[in-house]
Parts: sequence; structure tokens; C-alpha cells
Amino acid sequence: MTAFVISFEPVGRRGKCRKNESLLACAHRLGVGINSICGGEGTCHACRVQVISGAVSKPAPSELEAFSSQELEEGWRLACQTYPASDCKIAVPTDSMTTTQRIQVEGLEAKVSVEPPVRVYRLQLAAPSLETPQADADRLLGALGRRHGVRCAKIDIGALRTISDQLRSWKWKSQAVVRNGELIAILASRNHHLGLALDLGTTKVAGYLVDLSDGRTLAAKGIMNPQISYGEDVISRINRAVKSPDGGVQLQKVAVDAINELCTDLCAEVAAKPEEILEAVVVGNTAMHHLLLRLPVKQLVLSPFVPAISRAVEVKARELGLKIAHGAYVHVLPNIAGFVGADHVSMLLATDAWQAQETTLALDIGTNTEVSLVYKGKITSTSCASGPAFEGGHIKYGMRAATGAIERLRIDRHRILYQTIGGVPPIGICGSGILDALAQLYLTEIIDEGGRIMDNRPRVRAYKGQREFILVSKEEHNGKPAITITQHDIRELQLAKAAIRTGIQVLLESAGCAEDDIRQVIIAGAFGTYIDVASAVTIGMLPSLPIKRFRQVGNAAGMGAKLALISLKSRARAEAVASTVSYVELASNPGFQPIFMQASYLGRYRFVDGRREKSTDAD
Amino acid sequence: MTAFVISFEPVGRRGKCRKNESLLACAHRLGVGINSICGGEGTCHACRVQVISGAVSKPAPSELEAFSSQELEEGWRLACQTYPASDCKIAVPTDSMTTTQRIQVEGLEAKVSVEPPVRVYRLQLAAPSLETPQADADRLLGALGRRHGVRCAKIDIGALRTISDQLRSWKWKSQAVVRNGELIAILASRNHHLGLALDLGTTKVAGYLVDLSDGRTLAAKGIMNPQISYGEDVISRINRAVKSPDGGVQLQKVAVDAINELCTDLCAEVAAKPEEILEAVVVGNTAMHHLLLRLPVKQLVLSPFVPAISRAVEVKARELGLKIAHGAYVHVLPNIAGFVGADHVSMLLATDAWQAQETTLALDIGTNTEVSLVYKGKITSTSCASGPAFEGGHIKYGMRAATGAIERLRIDRHRILYQTIGGVPPIGICGSGILDALAQLYLTEIIDEGGRIMDNRPRVRAYKGQREFILVSKEEHNGKPAITITQHDIRELQLAKAAIRTGIQVLLESAGCAEDDIRQVIIAGAFGTYIDVASAVTIGMLPSLPIKRFRQVGNAAGMGAKLALISLKSRARAEAVASTVSYVELASNPGFQPIFMQASYLGRYRFVDGRREKSTDAD
Repeated sequence: MTAFVISFEPVGRRGKCRKNESLLACAHRLGVGINSICGGEGTCHACRVQVISGAVSKPAPSELEAFSSQELEEGWRLACQTYPASDCKIAVPTDSMTTTQRIQVEGLEAKVSVEPPVRVYRLQLAAPSLETPQADADRLLGALGRRHGVRCAKIDIGALRTISDQLRSWKWKSQAVVRNGELIAILASRNHHLGLALDLGTTKVAGYLVDLSDGRTLAAKGIMNPQISYGEDVISRINRAVKSPDGGVQLQKVAVDAINELCTDLCAEVAAKPEEILEAVVVGNTAMHHLLLRLPVKQLVLSPFVPAISRAVEVKARELGLKIAHGAYVHVLPNIAGFVGADHVSMLLATDAWQAQETTLALDIGTNTEVSLVYKGKITSTSCASGPAFEGGHIKYGMRAATGAIERLRIDRHRILYQTIGGVPPIGICGSGILDALAQLYLTEIIDEGGRIMDNRPRVRAYKGQREFILVSKEEHNGKPAITITQHDIRELQLAKAAIRTGIQVLLESAGCAEDDIRQVIIAGAFGTYIDVASAVTIGMLPSLPIKRFRQVGNAAGMGAKLALISLKSRARAEAVASTVSYVELASNPGFQPIFMQASYLGRYRFVDGRREKSTDAD
Repeated sequence: MTAFVISFEPVGRRGKCRKNESLLACAHRLGVGINSICGGEGTCHACRVQVISGAVSKPAPSELEAFSSQELEEGWRLACQTYPASDCKIAVPTDSMTTTQRIQVEGLEAKVSVEPPVRVYRLQLAAPSLETPQADADRLLGALGRRHGVRCAKIDIGALRTISDQLRSWKWKSQAVVRNGELIAILASRNHHLGLALDLGTTKVAGYLVDLSDGRTLAAKGIMNPQISYGEDVISRINRAVKSPDGGVQLQKVAVDAINELCTDLCAEVAAKPEEILEAVVVGNTAMHHLLLRLPVKQLVLSPFVPAISRAVEVKARELGLKIAHGAYVHVLPNIAGFVGADHVSMLLATDAWQAQETTLALDIGTNTEVSLVYKGKITSTSCASGPAFEGGHIKYGMRAATGAIERLRIDRHRILYQTIGGVPPIGICGSGILDALAQLYLTEIIDEGGRIMDNRPRVRAYKGQREFILVSKEEHNGKPAITITQHDIRELQLAKAAIRTGIQVLLESAGCAEDDIRQVIIAGAFGTYIDVASAVTIGMLPSLPIKRFRQVGNAAGMGAKLALISLKSRARAEAVASTVSYVELASNPGFQPIFMQASYLGRYRFVDGRREKSTDAD
């Protein structure tokens, strides 16, 4: 018997399955991150996958419990209980996904016709002679006109500096790269035509290397934003740039150095060079946008919080220190406001939320959370300072999503079930785990709806003047200090989730839209992809709506950047979206304070006429 | 009696004349350089001026000898013999002019309608508020559209970086600078709108500061090209750039540093700052052009001597390191060929030679001499390696045109009359003096038509194995070594002048035009302005044509740069001229060698059917 070939989608990883290997074990061996909280016992139901094609083992008892008969018919299974019986194609839904490389680079796929701003033309020129001593660039531009009907009025100085030597070394055979009437580079005839899409987040940077000739993503990679060592959140980085004239220069440089390294790594994957990257598109929040372009940021943090520019910016890559093709441009998508940036525009673009026919709420959850409401053809947006708690900041045992972080958690009759990134012993708890913990503590009545840790509950102790819940005891932790959730942690989380809920509610009220009218909630961003939506609803961070109305879309901002990279139409759309969105300033809104007070409570609830009403909706 | 006010034109210097002060003495005191070879004795007739208005003393006997009655009627006088009797306006013709600052910055005036590529618009914006939190740049561009009907699709990143802070510090009042749909800078409401025209010569750099609103030249200054310390001629500089990768960078940097200093000095004269310079136009020979733009130069010196680019180049000033307005461009006029550069195009433009109706020869004499022939509506150009002799190079006592250089010379019955720059004791001899010396030695038969110094002539001696003519003896030189012209000097000069004459002749022959058909000879460039045309004809450097057909036009290249700075139409014209000129390669021309042999002879002659015929034309 030959081993079966298993393909995991949408990540596109495929490989052979070993004998008696479950789908879960096979996935893990192939590097596909699938959740497994109970450790493969079939009890946590976190490893749900869908068999698209191929034969597998019969459903185990735990699967019959986990799925309805219709779901089983649709191919839904628990990966830990399922064994292939032929080659299979398996779909891994977003909420079953994890990876040790926890930076989100996959995203929602969307189709546009490939129409990038740069075009490439092949040319074979005649060598000059005493009889035809035409200048090199004139010769090239002349041939472009005659053979391809392309008139170039401009030539990039960086490109011009290379032409004479390159044409000679390539025996007068080359590819001319033209962008909007400007010759921006020449390539050897074997060179690729690459583009770079970049999602420049406060914490993480995701880069996609795209083939400009057909729009395919050739490589993707995520790295940390090295500006973190200059300040974890945007405000501290902005302060640094405002305080010292060198601060902004430094922040810009470390970011660009990292991006250059990212380009080199991405190109290495396809045996190309960064000079073959002919165009880049960058999205980021307004602060990242300004710091990358080295724009002034002082006015961003002073009322009325005005960006230096909102419309799209195009700048030569070398002006930013980006080492790609000589005359290549960086196109930076437009911002909406000081705290609603190009990354949010990009997300609205990629998810088609901007043209949603039904009432849609779209969120980018992060240190700063941007929310848009699409209601009756109008888009309103706001921004809420949700803080670093969901990235592990200001939480006693909080940590980023890295190996050893508890990322999923259930409290089952006072037994704590948890899953760590990498399956190693826990060293802390990351955002999605924190959210689960809060929901579980509330559901098991260890904390009340005000967030207070109750007395006389198992695993609750007083420690250094405050109560805390022991997630992993010293004994369970091989003698290392216990991992706990403190009363202070819970307060931090309440502030964070209240900010998000308030943002949603202020938008709804200013648009005159009821919570129930929301037919679709799009949750984007790495954190948003990993959270358990049920937990988020349970703690009142998100409105109490049926779970099926929620869509977790992964790195939609990065996907939007890719669309803008390969399609001029998408750029125009982004510009149109950004300019038509109405921005609602949260802090100055009269409804803010009362809503925020109510939104800090835990539990499922709805706002009706501005008042919190407990909800008992079941899914 | 109050002192009379005397204005000297076209230099525009005016001041009071002292009692019993001649026009010459007054001019010298005011810093206006007028020739005076005989030291004010009225015998050399080199200080000819024209009285435009005002009363002066009666003509002295020497003036009656120097001028025809018609000339006297027209106001022609010798400055050394003329004393003002009222306020006067005095025109100093080019060939009577000298200055201690010997770099040529005045030029031929020409009128074009002022239509620069940059336009400036005044704006008063409303400050942003929480209700109208529009981004700064969007606010500005919006107002430009609404109030001035100007749509800007682009904004320069350098300008964008300044906008937020500047608008606030200027209380939202500014001037927006727009160029071809791009916002390139904003200015305070009091700022000037300046432009820079630059003639970047191998030896000298002339800069003109121009008011872009009306085309007036506000300041002009000449400096040495500091690249000289890296090589006196273009070939040695090109070799330096080719040999080491840093060589080109270094050459570019020293040139740009000097230009930046020049900008600061020019701006200081009108109490402005270089940031108020909104556009620059540069002309130079092809090598200077390439070195400034840091283009590859290797192919320039290898057959077939091809420029990297001939068409006009536009590049952001900051890309070259030029510190003017943030987003300002440098427009570099087109080249014709590897050794016929933008400076020659600029000269053809400024002198209107490009559209001359009568047969015209136009020359830029320098280390490299460019020649164009306009004949029957067609322009042909060539380039000749005339070498450094006319700039004092390779000549025993040769020196640049600086204080102490003999610049005019006559041999009068074996008495040597000479004039030095600054009127100080001689320390050497510069180009125009060398040319005069050669002509005078030939006319006085001290050298023969082959250039040989004759034996048994006064002031001729043998020294270290070669003959030399003593211009200033040790006794006449206060005991310092004698200043002489050696046989070797004469050979160098013969090579130089033969190269120029050969260039002219090859052009004529390839166009099928006879020397006599030339109705106009335009001589441009600093050296060309200072030479005595009669001397140049006497030694056979220029064709034996009536003197009145010659026009010495000063720095016409700089003037052309000014035209291109203030007029888009002139730029288009330059581009059209450059692209229609036919380049004739001298070295590969079969006629070159025989003509060159004949052209090394001294004396007035014409070429008829390719053969030298002595000419006895008098003027």
C-alpha cells in the first residue's frame, strides 16, 4: 500500500500521510497548524476540518456528538479522530487554524483582473556605431515607441544610470519596465516581474511577493515590526518621533531595514533578487503610514488628530531607502483619519465590505481597533483605543502569540484544558487565550458580570493584596511559578473590550442602526482570526448576534494590498472608499462615556435605545 | 559743483565721477573693467566706449586719429581721453571689457514670454477642527482645486513632510508651488519665486538667479569648477570616474557642493534662501552633464562615443544633492553627441543661430570646441579637441585669466605693449594674451608661417635647448625671471588653433558650403568673448572673413539656460534643435588629416577646394 497524499487547504500544504496517522497528526507533521486543546482525545472539538474529497475512516463516537448529521454529510470531522483511506483534500477553517509561525499571512482570496501599473516590454536593440551614434537611452526609448507603440516622456535617473552598462553586458537585449509614461528600470531578459504587497502593522509586518504578470502570490512571510523596541504602541513611537528630530529618522530606518531584509528573504524563495520587484504597495495604520513616509506626526496626536495626508501617496522606493528596482514606486493606500488608516481601507476593499448590500460591521482588532459600519450604502468608521491587553500587554502572564503561549482555554468542571502554541509546556497566555479565559471564568461564575473575582471559588487565591485565578498551578507547572489571571488583568481586559464595544455602539447610534440589523460582522487581523468568537460574544466585546453572522477573514489588509498591487482599478476603488467614509470621532461623541460604562460589563447583551439588555440568544 | 553720475552699461554699474577723472579712471574705480593696454596714453585704442547720453570733453588728438567722423558722431570715444561734463550713460562694448572677476556671466539678451514650468498660487486655508478633521495635504489640494482650478494628482514627498508644520506656523496662509500637476513645495506668503540657471563648464561655473515671475536676472556669479583638482580636462575626469567606483561619486559631490554654495551666495544677494529656488536648469558639455547626473561615462570615450542619454533629463534636485526647494526639479537641456553637449544647444538657442536665415557658423571655444554650421536650414555640428592651451595649459608662462595675467598684447616697433588683468605687474599670460602674442609675432615676422621662431630677431634667445621670445625681460620684470613664449608654446598653440579650424572646415566641406558663404560667425564662451578676433583670423584659427561678420556673444550657453528656465517654449525648442542637428564625427572623417596639416599654418587664409589659399582681405 502506498501512502495517501493529503492536501490541506487553503494553505496549500500537501504531503504523504503515514500509516495509522490521524489527519491531525499528519497536519502537524507537515507544519499545518490545527488546534488541539484536549490533546487529540476528541473532547474539545477544536480541530474541526472538512473533507472536500477522498475517503476517510468512519465517524468516531465523539464525532457523532460533535456534529449534526447534516454536518457529517457535508464532510465535517474532527481531525484527531479521522484517518485517511485514500488521497484526500481537507479544508481547514480559519477557527481551527493555528501555526507556530503565528503571523497571519494567508488571507481572503479575491479575484480582480490583473492590470498592474507597470508594464514590461521585450527589446532587442542594434548596437551603436560611428554611423548611428545615437545615445543609449534615446535608442531604447525610440525602439519602445516604434516596436511597442509606447511613448515614454520620462526616464528615471536611477534607471538611466544603469542603462549603458547593462545594455552592453546583455548584448543589447533587455526588458523595459514602463510605468505611467516613465521608464523606471530595465531588466535582463530572464528576469521576473515581481511586486511587493506589505501590511505594515504596529506589531507585525506581513509581506507578499506577487508575480505581476498573472497576480499569483509567489511567497509570503511575516516578521515582527522592529520599531517595537522604540515603543510598543503607536503613541509611544509618535512621542519619540515628536520629541527628537532623530527619533522619526531612526524609526523609519529600522522599519525599512526590516522590509529590505524581508524582500531579500521573499525573493530568495523564488530565486529572484529584490531589484526584480518593480512596484510595492504598503498599507498600515495612519501612524505606521506616517512613520514609514517620515511625515510629521505631532498633529496626529493633538486634537483634532489630523493626518498630514489622507489620499494615496506615491513615492520612489529609494526615497524611503527601499532597495527594489531602480525607479520603482511605492504606492501607499489612502487613510481615512488620524486613527483609521490605510490598513482598514485595504480590509474594506479586500472583503468587499465597502459595497456590502446588507448591513455590515467590519473590525480590525488590535492595539487600536478600527470599526466600520456599512449601512444603507453609507460607510461610517471610528477608532477605539483597545490597548495592548489582547497582545499580552499589561497582563501579568500575558505574552505575544509565540511558542509556549496558552492560545485556547476551556474550564470543564474545574478542570482547566488548554492548548499552547507549539504544544510545549505553558509559559504565559496570549490574546486569544486571555479572551477564552475571561469568557470561561464568567461562564463558570468565578467572576461576576462586573468582573470581580468571587471569593471561595476553587483555584482562586489572594496573592500580594489582590485575588487571582490559578490557570496553571505551581505543581502543574513543574515547580515553576503558577500562571494566573489577576483581578488587575481582568480590569485591563474589561477596558479593552469595552472600548471595542463602545466603538461599535457609537457607530450604530450615529447611523441610527440597531444591533439586530447587522447581518454580517467581518473580523480581520491576526488577533481577530485566532479569537473564539463565542468567547468574544460571551464577554460582551462583540454584539450578541448569531455566530453564523461572523466572518473571520485573516489578514484582509494584506490581501487588499495585493489587490492594489496588481490592479489599478482596485487602487481607484480604495481611493473612492477612503474619501467617502465618514469618520466618527469617539472621544468627542456625547454618547461615549455612558456607553463605555455599560460596555465594561461581562455577559452577552444588546444595546437597545442606548441601554444594555441581557441577551439569552443561543446559536 | 556736484559730481556727475556715470552709468556704465550693460553691466549696470553707476557711481559718481571725481573731479578731473577720465571715464577710464572712473570705470576702474567703480570696478568696471575696461581694457587699457597703453596705460591711458591714448595710443592702443583698446578702451573704446560709446557715450549714449550726457556731455563729455572734446575729442583729443588721439581720438580724432582713432575714430572716423561718423564714429565720433555716434559717440565713440576713448575712455582714457574723455572727461564727463554732465551725468552720462556710457556703453562699454564687449571687446573693450575686462574685469578682475574674469568669469563671464553677462550674455546676449533675448526676449521670450515668461512661462516657467512652475506656477505659484496664494492660499488661505481654514484650520482643521473636530468637525472638519480633513488631512492637511488634502485640505491644501482641495483649496487649490476650488479656488484656482488647479488639480494636483501628485505631491512631492519632501514637500509633504513640511506641510503640516509649516501651515500651522504660517497660520494656514501659504503659497503653493505646482509643477506639471505636482505640488512640489509650499512657501510662506512673503517668499520669492526664484529659479537657477547654471552653465556648468569644465573650468568655470556660471550661475544666474532669476525671478520666475517676470524673468529678470536678480543676481549672477561665476566660480571655478572644483572638479579641476581631479583633472583639468574632461578626459582625465572621465578616466577617474571610470577607474574607481567612488571616482564618479566624488566628482559629482564636489560639483554639487560648489553649486550649493553658489546658490547660497546668489540668494544672499537678494536676501532670499535657496529653498526659494523652485526650478533649476543646467547646461554643460556632455561630460559635465554626465558627471553631474552621475551617468556612466565609459562609453563616452570609447568609439563610437555614445552618450548615456541625449534628450533632456528632468530629475528631482535632491536626487543630485542640490539643496533648493523640497520637490524642485533640475531640467538638464539635451545633448547632441558625446562631445557636443547641452551647452552648445543652449548657445544655439540663445543666439537664435538655430533659425538663422543666412549661413551661420557658431562656435564655443574652450578646452573642447564645439562648432555648428547652419546652412540652408540644416544644422551640422562637430567637436574638436582644442586642448588647454587657450586656458594657459601646457604653456610655459600660461595661466588662467586671473589678476596679473597678460590679456592683451601688441608689438609696436619692437616695443611690447601689454595689459594685465587688474593692472598689476605681469606674472604670466592668459588665453587672449597668448592669441595676441602669436598674431603679433607672426605679423612682425618673428615667427614664420610654419610657426618657427626666426633667428637673429630682437628679444629672441636660446634657452635650455629651445628658442624663445622674451615678452617681459628680467630687467622689465623687477629682477624676476623673464616671461617668454617658447617654440614649444607656439607648437601647442598651433595644434589648438588647427583643431578649431579643421572642425570648421570639415563641417563646411561635409555640408558643401564655401567659407565665403558664411555671413555670420558667432563666437560664444568666456574665452571667445575676450579674444581679439583680428588676432584669431591673423593666425588662421578662424576663416579670413570681414571682421564685421563676427559676433562675440559672451556666455550664450548661460543665457540659453535662462531662457529654458523661464520658458517652456524654449525648452521644447532646445529639444527640437538637439534632435535635428546632424553630428559629424571629426576623427573618422577622411578629410580630417589633410586639412589638419594645412590648418596648423599661421596667417590669414581660406580653404578653396580643400586647399589653403593665402588671403589678403582687409576690413
